[in-house]
Amino acid sequence: MVVSGQGNPRPPAPPDVRSARHREAAVRIAVLASIAHRVPPRDYGPWEQVASTLAEGLVSRGHDVTLFATADSLTSARLRSTAPTGYEEDRSLDAKVHEALHIAGLFERADGFDVISNQFDFLPLAFSRLTSTPVVTTIHGFSSERILPVFRAYDDIGHYVAISDADRHPDLTYAATIHHGIELDGFSLGAGDGGYLLFLGRIHPHKGTATAIEVARRAGLPLVIAGIVQDESYFREQVEPHVDGRSVTYVGSVGPTERDRLLGGAVALLHLIAFDEPFGLSVVESLVTGTPVVAYRRGSMPEIVRPGVSGALVDGVDEAVTAVADVGALDRAACRADAVARFSADRMVDDYARLFARLTG
Amino acid sequence: MVVSGQGNPRPPAPPDVRSARHREAAVRIAVLASIAHRVPPRDYGPWEQVASTLAEGLVSRGHDVTLFATADSLTSARLRSTAPTGYEEDRSLDAKVHEALHIAGLFERADGFDVISNQFDFLPLAFSRLTSTPVVTTIHGFSSERILPVFRAYDDIGHYVAISDADRHPDLTYAATIHHGIELDGFSLGAGDGGYLLFLGRIHPHKGTATAIEVARRAGLPLVIAGIVQDESYFREQVEPHVDGRSVTYVGSVGPTERDRLLGGAVALLHLIAFDEPFGLSVVESLVTGTPVVAYRRGSMPEIVRPGVSGALVDGVDEAVTAVADVGALDRAACRADAVARFSADRMVDDYARLFARLTG
Repeated sequence: MVVSGQGNPRPPAPPDVRSARHREAAVRIAVLASIAHRVPPRDYGPWEQVASTLAEGLVSRGHDVTLFATADSLTSARLRSTAPTGYEEDRSLDAKVHEALHIAGLFERADGFDVISNQFDFLPLAFSRLTSTPVVTTIHGFSSERILPVFRAYDDIGHYVAISDADRHPDLTYAATIHHGIELDGFSLGAGDGGYLLFLGRIHPHKGTATAIEVARRAGLPLVIAGIVQDESYFREQVEPHVDGRSVTYVGSVGPTERDRLLGGAVALLHLIAFDEPFGLSVVESLVTGTPVVAYRRGSMPEIVRPGVSGALVDGVDEAVTAVADVGALDRAACRADAVARFSADRMVDDYARLFARLTG
Repeated sequence: MVVSGQGNPRPPAPPDVRSARHREAAVRIAVLASIAHRVPPRDYGPWEQVASTLAEGLVSRGHDVTLFATADSLTSARLRSTAPTGYEEDRSLDAKVHEALHIAGLFERADGFDVISNQFDFLPLAFSRLTSTPVVTTIHGFSSERILPVFRAYDDIGHYVAISDADRHPDLTYAATIHHGIELDGFSLGAGDGGYLLFLGRIHPHKGTATAIEVARRAGLPLVIAGIVQDESYFREQVEPHVDGRSVTYVGSVGPTERDRLLGGAVALLHLIAFDEPFGLSVVESLVTGTPVVAYRRGSMPEIVRPGVSGALVDGVDEAVTAVADVGALDRAACRADAVARFSADRMVDDYARLFARLTG
């Protein structure tokens, strides 16, 4: 059963698009993405990346998918847009105005869907009692305890998805924990022969860029830093002074090809976070190139990194330095295999599809 | 016809509460207030003040009124709350979270009302197609052109109310212009014999506090400044250095009794605004105490101040100084009478009640 939601009707997907192993009936699914960035994001944008991976995977399984995202988004789903582009990319756009239009654009058509996948954070919850269509809200993390009241208020119908067990809040009821998964295409098994350590992520105190610099220095290995600068003063004061192009190199934001090369050549990825990170896409990206990860033991890290298989969980700078020396002995193919089995897009999409089938069945 | 919306049903208002001159049938009205402050506000809060005045007036006319506002609000309407207090008054409250809960709290019950008076700005528009109950949105001003897309998107069903003709945007369709009105109780005819000029409003470059200081100095009269400091650096750099307790006095935010006394004793109110103010409640408050207003000729000022009757419209500091000398000759009782006729709460409530009757008729 493939039925067009409304507008621009598409013909049903041909049967060969559907994998035989997916036994769910086709479902009319709305995926509500964040509009901070385009889907998929050009560089930073983990929420938009997950929305893209999910939408593509659901389309490939023969579902009738409508993606609500910015007008410059790229998708094989039906695209519905109110915002021309991401409000982080065009500062003439008022974020609050475009969020309101974007969410209303979905809920004014909500009855045409069997299920809504809310990848947007909490504001859509305020609309969720105004339709009988179930709204599945993926909680991409809690910016602070101050946002809990709205999650509590919709706990009865929220169908919340945690992105790690570590990020589950004790006050809330969850429909599932679904770890993110990534498209494997862009990530090949690397040789890890570049003789450097890698920091990959936004430059922000949360991400421990300065800690990575210290650990690399003490481990006697050069550090390559890749990612957008999210905290300018942190970059200026604690990162930039160490950048000398030899022991510490900053390469800015990198595209898919360069990212694959940088990851595959690294001895290890340093993920010495200063907060309980709910998930770490860059950690998974590293693992699937075979590059082990040395991570602080907090947040979701114990659910992602397998000590002795794909890296090390450490509790301080000293342990991190020791771990850097040790993880070089790990089998990179086994590291990749473990990550592929647990963090592929296929696995994530299967998990969501199963949840949607349960709610619409 | 008085029907309780839902919950806490009240008995119908006794017939004697209804004024004979109001011929509209009782209507189930939801008034959605801002939750930046309590209703009515303790000091600053023009949106909350208008919501309060409107709700009280509609109740006194026998309508079945539900006020959606903070839990510490004071009203003779039925009160419905999600936020405990104003988010400007308790910074532990996340504004976006509580706005979402507040607006949803109304729209989840929207079908129980005949009409919704949105005094909250644009976010409720995003919910307005999800109910058949008409939503009348009072536009309290445009913070910037960047918020226009959402007003344009709901222009077909927005029933927009402009708060002055000057504030009407050419792209939008309006149901009415309704000037604000004020409760007259707190404002008596003053003698204007205090020998000072008055600035009343938030201390902000928009309000021209520094210009008022200059005009008062050149007019040879002391200036009293009353109001909250909204722009700290403006206050520190352009206002505070002139405050000497004689030629310039700053008395902070004032309560109703002191405000009435300050207004009634002033020679004139200086309202030398640096923006196209959509309305000026403090201007009306001055006029009803008989104190004429010297205002810059911009925004809504030509719709409020009647040159030769209740003040002067001027185009610069020189003209303002001259006007201060002239307005002392105006008849203070006539000034008050003109303002009472045009800017009473009764007149405002009548206008809204008439509009609601037209939409629910």
